[in-house]
Amino acid sequence: MPATIIDGKSLAARLREQLGTDVEHFKRSTGRSIGLATVLVGNDPASEVYVGSKRRLSQQAGITDHHRRLPGDATQAQVAGVLDDLAADPTVSGILLQLPLPDHLDTKELIDRIPWEKDVDGLTTISAGRLARNVEGLLPCTPLGIISLLEDEGVQLQGTNVVVVGRSDLVGKPVAQLVLQKNATVTIAHSKTKDLAAFTRQADVVIAAAGVPHLLGAEHIFPGAVVIDVGIHRSPGGLIGDVDFDAVSKIASKITPVPGGVGPMTIAELLRNTLKAAQLQN
Amino acid sequence: MPATIIDGKSLAARLREQLGTDVEHFKRSTGRSIGLATVLVGNDPASEVYVGSKRRLSQQAGITDHHRRLPGDATQAQVAGVLDDLAADPTVSGILLQLPLPDHLDTKELIDRIPWEKDVDGLTTISAGRLARNVEGLLPCTPLGIISLLEDEGVQLQGTNVVVVGRSDLVGKPVAQLVLQKNATVTIAHSKTKDLAAFTRQADVVIAAAGVPHLLGAEHIFPGAVVIDVGIHRSPGGLIGDVDFDAVSKIASKITPVPGGVGPMTIAELLRNTLKAAQLQN
Repeated sequence: MPATIIDGKSLAARLREQLGTDVEHFKRSTGRSIGLATVLVGNDPASEVYVGSKRRLSQQAGITDHHRRLPGDATQAQVAGVLDDLAADPTVSGILLQLPLPDHLDTKELIDRIPWEKDVDGLTTISAGRLARNVEGLLPCTPLGIISLLEDEGVQLQGTNVVVVGRSDLVGKPVAQLVLQKNATVTIAHSKTKDLAAFTRQADVVIAAAGVPHLLGAEHIFPGAVVIDVGIHRSPGGLIGDVDFDAVSKIASKITPVPGGVGPMTIAELLRNTLKAAQLQN
Repeated sequence: MPATIIDGKSLAARLREQLGTDVEHFKRSTGRSIGLATVLVGNDPASEVYVGSKRRLSQQAGITDHHRRLPGDATQAQVAGVLDDLAADPTVSGILLQLPLPDHLDTKELIDRIPWEKDVDGLTTISAGRLARNVEGLLPCTPLGIISLLEDEGVQLQGTNVVVVGRSDLVGKPVAQLVLQKNATVTIAHSKTKDLAAFTRQADVVIAAAGVPHLLGAEHIFPGAVVIDVGIHRSPGGLIGDVDFDAVSKIASKITPVPGGVGPMTIAELLRNTLKAAQLQN
């Protein structure tokens, strides 16, 4: 039986609609606005598109747009100055520094200037520590989106065997922490793992976040497993993921497509984080 | 063939001796002292013993003793005041707040008053975040001790399958991060794991940190595996670990005893962290 295709686009739209209601309620009950500051350095075309989507969808949800743009040759001090202004501005609930930054800038230092309670990307050292210690805070958007997709599909994680392929700060490591909080047994596999299939074939849920096109094929997946594909790569035939969708969708019970799976969830979770940030600051 | 018994007591002694030399060198080359502040609230007998050992061994290594003792009914503000004084004192390189604290105190809030560069127990939120993000910092002592034992035994972690049993903030979660940094594939199992043996039997290295006496027997261990036992429990027959030593030592290739395995390493790593803290502040 072919897998259920997990429709991230549809869930993201539902979450954004619900968020619009929650934002409205927050503004009415507190008398405060909610603002998202997107900071774009330079004019990388992909970053322009991403930032454009984030601004448009946040405004649709009733969040005030505080966009800041700096030239590609902006200095560390100039970017830091903008971040510090936004940190001090009470009308700015969340700050998003669009990555990647130009090579001459120190990305980690700049990210850590964002106060944790405005860190809507969940990327600061303090946010990572709060996640590791199970302390309330803001979590990275893609891992949150994965958990929302699994919950919406009724996948119970407690007691299951989850294998995360990839160990990035942005996805692999934080999503492993989140599934661990949900009482799954979690394995983190990566490029140095010997016999990857030996691990993934035993998984109830595979989360592919390695950044390698079609890394996982049918031979990696136990029939009936749930497969979440975080990868997104251009190919001659269009966008593809870390999972060979055609092969794996024949044996998995549920699978996210690329595009239209995890991707749309990331912005929805960013907007939810912005409301949460406003609540934390209130 | 019976397992090699990993002698933590001996390695800890060697590390402390080396540390004495390194401390001497630091003091001579910088003209600065190195100080460790142990903070004990109340008079729990076990805590008295631990703090006593830490003070004695740090002094032996040439580290200045800055012990502070508060009564068991000390308020949150009183303990916070002591920690803030120590944080501001340039002769104090490291601050250790002995746990557990009396129930009326907010432990997490107090730990997070310790500046990360003096956090020789590696327990603050920022230290946890630095570990998660692979940023230089101070790491928890028991996980460090486990890595030192494995390295001293010549166990190469890269590409191996490590199963950590237990997910505490103090041991399980940070040691999983450390073995991941060493390029092992890591699985975190815990009380909600179904069929624990199915995971541990596939491991090249098992790190038992569940806090359950004799949780792991011979049926959990693949012949030839390396077994690290973090547990320590009183029993009618003396101190025992999370691993059934008599049974497992017959099939493992290497195993830590209880006592005399991981335990002595923790203080040795604390002293090494104190020197590292002094170096970070210099």
